[in-house]
Amino acid sequence: MQAELLQKYAELVVNVGVNIQKDQILVINSPIECADFARKISEAAFRAGAHDVVMSWGDELSAHIRYEHGKKELFTEFPEWRVKFYQGYAEQGAAFVSIAARDPQIFSDIEPEKLKLANQAAGAALLEYRERLMSNKNTWCVVSVPTQGWATKVFPEDTAEKAVEKLWQAIFKTVRIGEGIDTVAEWRKHIDFLQQAAKFLNEQKFVKLHYKNASGTDLEIELPEGHIWAGGAEKSELGTEFAANMPTEEVYSMPKRDGVNGTVVASKPLNYNGNLIENFKLVFKDGKVVDYTAEKGAEILKGLLETDEGASYLGEVALVPFDSPISQSGILFYNTLFDENASCHLALGKAYPTCIAGGEKMDSVTLLQHGVNDSLVHEDFMIGTRDLEIIGTTADGREIKIFEQGNFGRNLW
Amino acid sequence: MQAELLQKYAELVVNVGVNIQKDQILVINSPIECADFARKISEAAFRAGAHDVVMSWGDELSAHIRYEHGKKELFTEFPEWRVKFYQGYAEQGAAFVSIAARDPQIFSDIEPEKLKLANQAAGAALLEYRERLMSNKNTWCVVSVPTQGWATKVFPEDTAEKAVEKLWQAIFKTVRIGEGIDTVAEWRKHIDFLQQAAKFLNEQKFVKLHYKNASGTDLEIELPEGHIWAGGAEKSELGTEFAANMPTEEVYSMPKRDGVNGTVVASKPLNYNGNLIENFKLVFKDGKVVDYTAEKGAEILKGLLETDEGASYLGEVALVPFDSPISQSGILFYNTLFDENASCHLALGKAYPTCIAGGEKMDSVTLLQHGVNDSLVHEDFMIGTRDLEIIGTTADGREIKIFEQGNFGRNLW
Repeated sequence: MQAELLQKYAELVVNVGVNIQKDQILVINSPIECADFARKISEAAFRAGAHDVVMSWGDELSAHIRYEHGKKELFTEFPEWRVKFYQGYAEQGAAFVSIAARDPQIFSDIEPEKLKLANQAAGAALLEYRERLMSNKNTWCVVSVPTQGWATKVFPEDTAEKAVEKLWQAIFKTVRIGEGIDTVAEWRKHIDFLQQAAKFLNEQKFVKLHYKNASGTDLEIELPEGHIWAGGAEKSELGTEFAANMPTEEVYSMPKRDGVNGTVVASKPLNYNGNLIENFKLVFKDGKVVDYTAEKGAEILKGLLETDEGASYLGEVALVPFDSPISQSGILFYNTLFDENASCHLALGKAYPTCIAGGEKMDSVTLLQHGVNDSLVHEDFMIGTRDLEIIGTTADGREIKIFEQGNFGRNLW
Repeated sequence: MQAELLQKYAELVVNVGVNIQKDQILVINSPIECADFARKISEAAFRAGAHDVVMSWGDELSAHIRYEHGKKELFTEFPEWRVKFYQGYAEQGAAFVSIAARDPQIFSDIEPEKLKLANQAAGAALLEYRERLMSNKNTWCVVSVPTQGWATKVFPEDTAEKAVEKLWQAIFKTVRIGEGIDTVAEWRKHIDFLQQAAKFLNEQKFVKLHYKNASGTDLEIELPEGHIWAGGAEKSELGTEFAANMPTEEVYSMPKRDGVNGTVVASKPLNYNGNLIENFKLVFKDGKVVDYTAEKGAEILKGLLETDEGASYLGEVALVPFDSPISQSGILFYNTLFDENASCHLALGKAYPTCIAGGEKMDSVTLLQHGVNDSLVHEDFMIGTRDLEIIGTTADGREIKIFEQGNFGRNLW
């Protein structure tokens, strides 16, 4: 049974996720522990007509050994061959699948400076590759399958085996896979719903969103002229429709780089780079984080914000109802792919050029002039709560309650 | 206990195998299934002062999917980034560890033409890298650990778990690891023994070896002027002593390219490229294979011989007593690393430039003029039997029985 569901899942990733085209190359980034699933994706891709499938294996335990024993200087290096790998396949029009299944705390004993340096080096070296993906020049999809390290963090009361099993069930549910379910039809319906929400938001042409809740969030986010709300699926440069995240429950756009003011309180821990940042708060002035606190992982948060100038500005604003299916599961996944889809969120760092009219064709200076943030990082963090209220202000001064009690207002569209 | 032995094994590979030097880079080629051992090697290398350890993961099951579904043209391609990977690290003076643990028959259902094309493409693309290793410009070491696919082929009567356990025991024995054994001292002693045998053979300056046994082998191999016998350990360009194979039981040199005549019958199956070639016979004339038969895997043997011109000439002649420890174990490993060290063997393809005086500094034309074979491949095959007799002829016409009844003659040195 599990094998059948896994098969269905792999086909979903290939045919709806990256929507592989005939003679296209597929690159799969996978932890070695997720090899079973990566192989199934590979097979499904060849069946769908892929020219080649290239495996790029990762192993957190090896990475941990390297972080533990390597000297600080090592982490300022980024090998040329790896740049060639990503950049080369991107230029050949490849699709990219990433399996995100990290142990949430694997690097908690590593000197934060090493992690920061490694991120900076990778960010700078892979700049062009990441820009291609973030502006949809290539199709891409992030998905997940359980690993022991991750599952036992999500379900600490259970045996490893039971925890993995429970995480499988949870993941299958979020990606609409199960016996008797027409998964592709369900995804079609779901994408339509998200696109309707995006359509409504686009029609309003909001200039500002005001977030408020009892946890202490009181944040005003201006939206730049020409901003675009998107959700569910997107189109690549060549017109291929693809779903960049599985699951996905968000409609999202970009904030105006220098138009963010106030305080926002995180509603879930953020798993960044094998570390947890918990109970944190950010204070913004004219777009920039000017103050922050964190009960746990403050050093890691500091490292993130210090990656570069743009890392302390926002690059994404995303709306997810508190009653969304992932949220209703009540599970804290410690995995951004899931937690961001259970909660309204923001992202520190680079904005998607596709979220502003004509953005894919703007150079970095023009993007900045239009209020589009740039950075080596793009890191989502969760802010949605049961009592979150979001009021949107339109250009002609009307105020519309977009969110009430954590969910989209009734009869908005 | 197993963990301790594994630790000892990893340290042996790092400190005796590639003999890692301070600030050197180590590249580990490992099947994803052997991750535990690869990580232990990584840790030992960092402890010994390595600057960086780079993992290069492989997965035969993914490779099988690719061979099964990929079009023939795909296998003529070899990606630029992979060349950069090996060539780049080699130029930086890296050491290379490869974990050889293939399932002996994993590719038996794959069209042989695809395997041949892939080998040709890899051979051509990695030519410079392979030449560096074969002339000891970089240190390298091939070792092995059990995988399920391999272990169950070696011990087909046992459960997978039991088979893996038995293969572990066999491997530990061959590499002199066990409780109460001073492994490094044992290796020192063993290397000395092999070097004594090589010294004797070098002093004789044989011009010809004549192989004979009751299975039908009747082969004359001329040795080129200036040929060198080596064994146990070698020295890199920079003077680092290293052991390229673990286990190792051979003393070896090179035949004269055009000086091989007669018939040789293989004494063990050859695992080539995930296929078994069984009960095969090669007929040589003036160095070249002019006829061959194989009970099983004839197509695979054909592919190997057709890789390029040099693939049907010999590149190595190696002596291993029939009573050597691996041979005595009575186990057929279906893995060249072990089987070649249980048996006198020859290799089709490229000769080690280190096996002729001054060879490391000769270009390919000069090497050929000295009777040194060149090819994209170097493939050992086993010919040793209990009744093998090898008579060496010296320049002044003396005949010396080097091997009698499958072993070195008594009191040779």
